Amino acid sequence: MGSNLIHGNAVIGQAGGPTTVINQSLVGVIEGLRAEGAGTPGGTIKKIYGMRFGVEGLVKDELFDLSKLPYEFMRQLAVTPSAALGSTRVKPDEPCCERILASCKKHNIRYFFYIGGNDTAETCRIVNELARDTGYDMRCFHVPKTVDNDLAVGDHTPGFPSAARFVAKACMADFLDNAALPGIKINVIMGRHAGYLTAATALARRWHLGTTRIDGPQLIYVPEIPFVADRFVQDVAKVFDETGRCHIAVSEGIEDGEGTPIAARLMQQMGTDQHGNVQLSGTGLLADELSRLLKEKLAPVGGKPPRVRADTFGYLQRCFPDPAPVDSREARAVGRKAAELATMGQTDGSIAIVRRSPIADGALYSSELIRVELAEVARKARRMPMAFLDGHNNVSQQFLYYCRPLIGDIQRFERLQWSRRKQLETGEIWHDEGQPESPDALD
Amino acid sequence: MGSNLIHGNAVIGQAGGPTTVINQSLVGVIEGLRAEGAGTPGGTIKKIYGMRFGVEGLVKDELFDLSKLPYEFMRQLAVTPSAALGSTRVKPDEPCCERILASCKKHNIRYFFYIGGNDTAETCRIVNELARDTGYDMRCFHVPKTVDNDLAVGDHTPGFPSAARFVAKACMADFLDNAALPGIKINVIMGRHAGYLTAATALARRWHLGTTRIDGPQLIYVPEIPFVADRFVQDVAKVFDETGRCHIAVSEGIEDGEGTPIAARLMQQMGTDQHGNVQLSGTGLLADELSRLLKEKLAPVGGKPPRVRADTFGYLQRCFPDPAPVDSREARAVGRKAAELATMGQTDGSIAIVRRSPIADGALYSSELIRVELAEVARKARRMPMAFLDGHNNVSQQFLYYCRPLIGDIQRFERLQWSRRKQLETGEIWHDEGQPESPDALD
Repeated sequence: MGSNLIHGNAVIGQAGGPTTVINQSLVGVIEGLRAEGAGTPGGTIKKIYGMRFGVEGLVKDELFDLSKLPYEFMRQLAVTPSAALGSTRVKPDEPCCERILASCKKHNIRYFFYIGGNDTAETCRIVNELARDTGYDMRCFHVPKTVDNDLAVGDHTPGFPSAARFVAKACMADFLDNAALPGIKINVIMGRHAGYLTAATALARRWHLGTTRIDGPQLIYVPEIPFVADRFVQDVAKVFDETGRCHIAVSEGIEDGEGTPIAARLMQQMGTDQHGNVQLSGTGLLADELSRLLKEKLAPVGGKPPRVRADTFGYLQRCFPDPAPVDSREARAVGRKAAELATMGQTDGSIAIVRRSPIADGALYSSELIRVELAEVARKARRMPMAFLDGHNNVSQQFLYYCRPLIGDIQRFERLQWSRRKQLETGEIWHDEGQPESPDALD
Repeated sequence: MGSNLIHGNAVIGQAGGPTTVINQSLVGVIEGLRAEGAGTPGGTIKKIYGMRFGVEGLVKDELFDLSKLPYEFMRQLAVTPSAALGSTRVKPDEPCCERILASCKKHNIRYFFYIGGNDTAETCRIVNELARDTGYDMRCFHVPKTVDNDLAVGDHTPGFPSAARFVAKACMADFLDNAALPGIKINVIMGRHAGYLTAATALARRWHLGTTRIDGPQLIYVPEIPFVADRFVQDVAKVFDETGRCHIAVSEGIEDGEGTPIAARLMQQMGTDQHGNVQLSGTGLLADELSRLLKEKLAPVGGKPPRVRADTFGYLQRCFPDPAPVDSREARAVGRKAAELATMGQTDGSIAIVRRSPIADGALYSSELIRVELAEVARKARRMPMAFLDGHNNVSQQFLYYCRPLIGDIQRFERLQWSRRKQLETGEIWHDEGQPESPDALD
C-alpha cells in the first residue's frame, strides 16, 4: 500500500445521461482502489461506497457499499449499459456542494470520484475547492463520459465511440432499407451542441468512398453550422432529383443563425430538465417537422408528395449493448487511472484521452491517459472543429480518419447495383476498392 | 438434373417491407436452383433473373442476371440487411398480373419466386391462376417474410425472429437507461395489425422472471386489444406510483374499439402508401401524443408533470444488422425449399415453418418446412392468439416460451439493486434464479 494514502473511505458516483460503457469506468475506479488494498481488512481505504443517483443519494445517505463486490459480478456489471448506481440531472451550486462536502465528512470520505460530463466536472471543482478551503483532506477526481464528445480536453470522451458505432451501423442498414423502397429518409441523431455523433453517421458509407456521398447519409447537418430551412430543401431536392432518393442525418441540436435550437422553436410546450435544457431527446417532433417541410416544399412525384420517412434514433444511441472495443477498454482505463492518481497522492483532476497515433489513413490507433485540471473541463464545452466539416452538409476526410479507429470493425455488406449489372451478369462483380460507384447504383 | 424440370428461365423478386434476413431467402432460392444445374452450360434452367424493385422491374424488363454470382459474393449478400433486389409496395390486381405474366412469357420464365408477405402471396396466386388458365407452364412460389409475423400459416415467419431480437435487446438496455434517470418511458414498436413484435419486448425482462413485471417493459399494448386512453393512464399511474418509474411498449398499430388505429386518428395529414395503408412507421407522432397525454393526466411530481420520454424504434427494427441465428438459417432454408419443390415438379405453393418442439420451458427448438397452398397465405392475416396475452397489458408465459428460442442468446446484465444492498455489502450478491426481485430494485 502506498504511503500517500489517507485513512478513510472512497465514494463513486455517476451523473448525466448514461452510456453503454459508463459502468466500465465505475468498475475501473473500484479496481484501481482495490489495487491499493481498499476494502480489505488491513486497507487504509476502508470502504468503497457508491452514490445512489449521484450526489442526490450522497446527501441523503443513500450509499451502496461496493467494497466486497465479487470479481465475476463486477465483470458482468462492467459490460452492462447505463449507470448501475443510478444517475442524476441535478446541477449543484455552491450551497448544494456544501451539503455534498458535509456528507463526505460525515462518512469520512477521503476519495471522491464522479463520472460524468462537464457539469459533473464542475461539481468536482466546487466540492474540491470547498474541501481545500475548509482544510478537509480529500482527493477529488472527475472521470469523463459523454456520448456528445463535447468535453473541452482530450481526443475524445468515453461513451462517444460506442454511440458512434451504433449510429454508423444503424445508418448503414437503414440506407440499404431506404434503397429498397426509395424515397427520402431523415434520421435524427443525438448531440445537443456538438455534431460529433451526427458526423459519425458518415462512417456508414463504404470505407473506400471516403467523403463521397453515393452511400448514405448523403447529407449531414450538425449544430456547428446554422440550419437554413430553404437551403436544406434545396440540398434534398438536388440529391433526390439525381438519385431518386435521399438519406439524411440531422443532429437534434441543429440551430438557427441566432443559436436557437430548431427543435426549441418547434415546441409549443417545452419540456426542460433541471439544467434548464430544452428537451431534445425522447420526442420525434424535429424529425416529423422536417418531414412535413419536405413534403410541402419538394416537387410532387406523380401528383403526390414524395415518400418521406423520419426516425429519431433516441436513447438506443447511448445504451444499445454493442460497445466499441476501444471504448470499453478506455472507459475502464480512465476509471482505473483516476483511482491510481488519487492513491498516488494527486489531490484532484480529471482524466483525458490523448491520441498518440496520427489522424491519417490506416494509422494504427493508440492512446494514453493524462491528468488535467478540473477547471479545464468544468462547464466548458467544445464543438467540432471546422477542419472536420466539409461545406454545410458534409464531414471531411480528416473527420473520417479521426473517427474510424474508434468505432471498431463493422461488417461489410454486398449489394446488387443496377449500374453494375454487366459485372453481375458475367460473375465479375467484385469490390473495386479504388473506384466510387455510380450514384444510380440500385443498391 | 431432375426429369421434372422445364426448359426456360427463373425469376426471383422481393416485395414489401425489407427485413434483416430477406437476402438469405434470395440466396436460398439461387442455391436451390443451382443444385439443379441452373445457370450452368448444360442446365435445363438457363438463367436466374432478379426483379429490380419486384414486379415493377419485371414488367419494365429491368432484370438482374444472377446466374453467375460468385459464391463468396452470395455469402456476403445473404448477411446484408434489406432487399438487395429492391422492393415494391405495388399491390397488383388482375390487369397488373396479366402484364406480369406477359413479361414472364416474353423472357421465357418458367420458375417464378416472390419473397414477401400476404400481398406478395396474393400476387403469386393471381399470376399462377392466369398462367394455368392460359396453359402457360410455370411454377409459381411464394417465399414468406414479414417482421409482423402475421402470415396465416406456420409457427412464425422469417424476419420476425431478428426483429424480435432487436426489440428485446433494445428494451433491455433502454430499461436500464430509464432506471438510471427514472421517469416514464414509452417505446413504440412496429406491427400494423399483429402485436407479436411488441409482445417480444417482454423478452427484455430477465428470463427467470417470466411474466412478472419488475423489469421493463412493465406494460405492453398490442393491436389485438382495444386501446382505451383512460385505462392506459390508470395503468401507468399505478406502476409509476409503486416504483417511481414506468417502462412501456406500445404497438404502432394500437386501435380503438372500432378498429381504427389510434395513430390514424391523430394524423391530420395522413400519409398513405399504395396499399391504402395509413403511415404508421417513420413518424414519432403516436409516441409524442401518448407522452403528451401522460404529462397532462398524471399527477404532477414536485409541481411539474412527470418526466416522460418516448422513442419510436422505427426502421432499425427491420434492418439492424444483428440477425437471430435461427432466423438466418430458416430464411435461407425457406428459399432453398421453394426452389427444391419447384424443381421437383410442384407447380405452386408457399412455404411454412412448422415447429416440431413443444412450446414449453427449456424445450430444445426444432422446426421443419412444409408446402402450403398459395390461397392459404394470400391476403390473409393473423393476429396473436389470446393465449399469448395476459390481461389487456401483458403477455402470457406461453408467449415467452414461444418466442424465446427464436431470438437466440442475449447477454445478461448485472445490476446494483438498492433493495439488495445487504447482499452487495457482504459480497453475497448473486443471481437468485428462482426469486423475483423486489420492485424497488435500484434500478
